[in-house]
Amino acid sequence: MKLYDWGAAPNPRRVRIYLAEKGIEVPTEDVGVPNSGDLRPEFLSAHPHRRVPMLELDDGACIGEAMAICRYFEALHPDPPLMGRTPKEMALIDMWERIAEFEGLQAVSENFRNSRRTFTDRAIAGYANALPQIPAPIERGALRTRIFFEKIDAQLADNQFVAGDNYSTADITTLCTIDFARFCKLPVPDECKILLRWYEVVSARPSARA
Amino acid sequence: MKLYDWGAAPNPRRVRIYLAEKGIEVPTEDVGVPNSGDLRPEFLSAHPHRRVPMLELDDGACIGEAMAICRYFEALHPDPPLMGRTPKEMALIDMWERIAEFEGLQAVSENFRNSRRTFTDRAIAGYANALPQIPAPIERGALRTRIFFEKIDAQLADNQFVAGDNYSTADITTLCTIDFARFCKLPVPDECKILLRWYEVVSARPSARA
Repeated sequence: MKLYDWGAAPNPRRVRIYLAEKGIEVPTEDVGVPNSGDLRPEFLSAHPHRRVPMLELDDGACIGEAMAICRYFEALHPDPPLMGRTPKEMALIDMWERIAEFEGLQAVSENFRNSRRTFTDRAIAGYANALPQIPAPIERGALRTRIFFEKIDAQLADNQFVAGDNYSTADITTLCTIDFARFCKLPVPDECKILLRWYEVVSARPSARA
Repeated sequence: MKLYDWGAAPNPRRVRIYLAEKGIEVPTEDVGVPNSGDLRPEFLSAHPHRRVPMLELDDGACIGEAMAICRYFEALHPDPPLMGRTPKEMALIDMWERIAEFEGLQAVSENFRNSRRTFTDRAIAGYANALPQIPAPIERGALRTRIFFEKIDAQLADNQFVAGDNYSTADITTLCTIDFARFCKLPVPDECKILLRWYEVVSARPSARA
């Protein structure tokens, strides 16, 4: 088994934090080209999905998508549960994790990928120089990011963690979204006090260094 | 328990097909305003997530996101499995279902939501008149839709269904994407012969009428 990683990117970090929370060690290879927006050509030609993280199993099967990789490990190592224990918990965590991905991480990516010279022809990850940047999503991504922060701030008013009483994959994706947004100069606004307090708490967990 | 539905929209259909495949009946209310792009104001004010499908449990908890709703029922009624049986199957289905959502359904939506007069200020679902349409994603959505079709066509060359040997939620999302794309005049190209054959097979299942 091998995990293809890229230290500089937000999606592989979701898996690294997950594995650190679970105490699972996986042989890992960083396939990013340092100081660039590129993955190594050998990786790209061998993996037509063109994205990291990517988990290659011993039988050669490749699992892409950060949360699908986490789901694989969750089925093998259910404790401590990070994707819920009961049907309701499982559903709420899946819902909030998807909200964090669609409304948070994708919004920041929309801003980032359309504004950086590195990604001129790759406005969305995973396409081979097929998608030119377009300017309007830069603004829209910033607006959606702010709306996302306000939504999670409201959700945390009644919940210790994003999807309820327990730390879960929904917290992992939200944390990676905030740090990616900070890198893009889209910080959590001061008004989102509850979200900022939650951010301090989850950033203090050892897994956040992953 | 109640499922909030909208007969005209692609996302609620993912849940309806899932329930039909499982043979599960759920009290359902259609909250769409006929011949419009709107959800009923009572629903919107009571459900700040502003999207369908939405499953309201008897304790008042609300589960949004089509796949999170399916996951709730999958945990309660595991047979027949539509989200995998083994860790590897679960991960591959989750991966391909997400690819179908991110690269298929979202691409068609990008085209649809930015081009219709009905959605002038709602270029992405779930935002309250906050996101004006932008023209460039119309073209890009069409291009990404075609790239998605080619990717699934290639995947089906070696697999009976989208994520492997068994019909799964990955097939459901792909089917709903194709029918939504047809509605948007983005049909599967004739060159994608394997995808077109698969489309005939899954469209012939009774669940496809849901």
